[in-house]
Amino acid sequence: MKYSFASHVEWIMSSPSDNISSNPQQGSFISLADEWPTSDIFPLTSMHTAATDVLLSLPQALQYGNIEGYMPLREWLQLEWKQHKQLDLDINQILITRGSEHAMDLLVRVYVDKGDAVLVENPTSPSSLQILRMQGATIIPVEGDQEGLLAQQLVELIEKHHPKLLFVTPNFTNPTGVLWSLERRKQVLELCRAYQVFIVEDDSYGDLYFEESKENEPFSRRYPSLSALDDHGKGGQVLYVGSFSKTVAPGLSTGFAAGPSKLIEVMGAAKQWVDRQSCNLNQRLLYQMLTSTTFDWHEHITLLRREYSTRLRLMTELLKRPAWRKAKYNLPSGGMFLWVQLPEGLRSELLLKCSISKGTSFCVGTECYADKNMGFDVIRLNFTHPRRDELLLGMHLLSEAVNEFTARS
Amino acid sequence: MKYSFASHVEWIMSSPSDNISSNPQQGSFISLADEWPTSDIFPLTSMHTAATDVLLSLPQALQYGNIEGYMPLREWLQLEWKQHKQLDLDINQILITRGSEHAMDLLVRVYVDKGDAVLVENPTSPSSLQILRMQGATIIPVEGDQEGLLAQQLVELIEKHHPKLLFVTPNFTNPTGVLWSLERRKQVLELCRAYQVFIVEDDSYGDLYFEESKENEPFSRRYPSLSALDDHGKGGQVLYVGSFSKTVAPGLSTGFAAGPSKLIEVMGAAKQWVDRQSCNLNQRLLYQMLTSTTFDWHEHITLLRREYSTRLRLMTELLKRPAWRKAKYNLPSGGMFLWVQLPEGLRSELLLKCSISKGTSFCVGTECYADKNMGFDVIRLNFTHPRRDELLLGMHLLSEAVNEFTARS
Repeated sequence: MKYSFASHVEWIMSSPSDNISSNPQQGSFISLADEWPTSDIFPLTSMHTAATDVLLSLPQALQYGNIEGYMPLREWLQLEWKQHKQLDLDINQILITRGSEHAMDLLVRVYVDKGDAVLVENPTSPSSLQILRMQGATIIPVEGDQEGLLAQQLVELIEKHHPKLLFVTPNFTNPTGVLWSLERRKQVLELCRAYQVFIVEDDSYGDLYFEESKENEPFSRRYPSLSALDDHGKGGQVLYVGSFSKTVAPGLSTGFAAGPSKLIEVMGAAKQWVDRQSCNLNQRLLYQMLTSTTFDWHEHITLLRREYSTRLRLMTELLKRPAWRKAKYNLPSGGMFLWVQLPEGLRSELLLKCSISKGTSFCVGTECYADKNMGFDVIRLNFTHPRRDELLLGMHLLSEAVNEFTARS
Repeated sequence: MKYSFASHVEWIMSSPSDNISSNPQQGSFISLADEWPTSDIFPLTSMHTAATDVLLSLPQALQYGNIEGYMPLREWLQLEWKQHKQLDLDINQILITRGSEHAMDLLVRVYVDKGDAVLVENPTSPSSLQILRMQGATIIPVEGDQEGLLAQQLVELIEKHHPKLLFVTPNFTNPTGVLWSLERRKQVLELCRAYQVFIVEDDSYGDLYFEESKENEPFSRRYPSLSALDDHGKGGQVLYVGSFSKTVAPGLSTGFAAGPSKLIEVMGAAKQWVDRQSCNLNQRLLYQMLTSTTFDWHEHITLLRREYSTRLRLMTELLKRPAWRKAKYNLPSGGMFLWVQLPEGLRSELLLKCSISKGTSFCVGTECYADKNMGFDVIRLNFTHPRRDELLLGMHLLSEAVNEFTARS
């Protein structure tokens, strides 16, 4: 029969790196395109101990769970955030999801009608764009600099489009890696409050900062989340989303949304009907591990930070090669990505084709822009998933590919 | 700030049994309202062995998985369906999801625009209705009898509304427990083919038949799925959805969609962006268990069937009490629910209030109708989740509640 898809499907199907991203482990192919963490530091043994504890004593772990998520895990987050993130939330402000994307998707599904305007950073993550396209939102990009979103442009666009939502990632924005300044955080929050624009703050990368704390002032004090600035999470202006996929393991499919209890309630109701629960077993495994004596959460994150910092340094070492002479980038101080402006005249799609033929890939910039006519000359490189040796080889192949174009001109 | 929800949120929030369903294990409360399997027959030991095998040898199990699902699990389904379900599918026709609801939700999100007409059985499952409401579909209910949907009415409604989709559950419809006759299955499939209405077939309960096979003719030959009748799954007219939640364990959050490869491809693309993957770890655990020597899938299902058949018999024994003298029901030959027409004049909402005060609950009929003015005098009882003793006590309390009303009149 002839299939008659919904009107937004055209957008969804137009993602060029789809097939590359989904098969990064095929043979010797090295993907620098993904949003994956390293597999080398997964806490396999601790997870196995947790699985033994949970599966041999708790049949409930295999039953449906609560819609809102496993209560002890929500309480763990509540305490962790209170102690380390300047967030002081009630338990009914916390909803367990399958990840940060699932959290954003749920919010968009209950908050956005087709045609509603939503502001995003320009550029922004491919998944934010697709989540908004799936719901038929009108996406309005806002420019930023190395300090965060440009306040003046934000005001102009708010006054022009009357958006319902603003999507931001103040800690190591995907793809640019920008870390917003404290001043800019406060400014954006105040503007959104004044104009009644609700903020969705993705903090998926917030634990992955590379700089060690100075004079005992922890990262989250120097760079408080918008949610923390919003009366420690009680101001009602921000939905804070994130996940354990980048810090513990994506295979657990466990993340969270935290915000105004009314919003969390509605998101929970929607969640109940469209997928009933996030994985109950995994939430219990995760909680069991987080609270066991064989695993130290903060030590684990510190280990990840050091490894990723090293991998980024390796990557930038290779960018010193002649092939990249005319490329530009800002060195991020955390996160998972390096955003590189290609030498003038070099188009990312052509470079990608050539790179794939050599055995490596990256994310083309166009995927990160709402406007499909932008981003032809930028690429996003992931430095967390490839092992150090793979990273070196991948960057070597990519440099070869760049050389083939730049040597000609 | 003032929150401005999407227009369909009102519908989503209007589910009365929400709070009851999500807390069925609180204290001594006995819920007959849920769609839960028994916790008594979860394969905990086999699952633990599988967890040991997977976690101690496969770091990939904790990484992101393929969008389409874990390939060996898809191959397991392919073979199982070929051998036991008269389905002969290509591997790219099979997509792993988080469950049957997730599969239906994905299809609806890529196929239905706001206002598009979708046919459902009347009554139908509360979650089908909510999934369609979330997408803003115009829901058109079609009446049925003990053989399945009424073909004549189906034709009339198709000609009047030009629907895009028909949602059906031929094996033990939720809530009525009806098992469609072979003749009706063929008739509905032919009509939908003639009018180009795509069918979504939920087979979540198809393995839970109580009658043992007669003269070596297995259940799936006597009652082939619409998908099997549609050229063994290759006719392109049907999306076949189901899950392991009712047969192995809901805590695994693993289900599937199978259908035309074009449709599966688009659903996969949507899945990639809104939640990237279904739980990778769980798919591997499940596969490991299904193929291990410590677990026999068909024996396990047989065990479930026998237990559920016994529990249904217990439930109907209690319905022979005087309180229920004027109640009516058809005895289902499988599934998880008994659909009971209350004695005349007794309204399910009032009965529910009284039942809750006594310590038990059920699903009110109104939740199963697209038209909110229907179903006031019917209730859905679940006989799979409460243990035998709980079932007896729950039915006893419920009978008391009925008595309080009927004794008066």
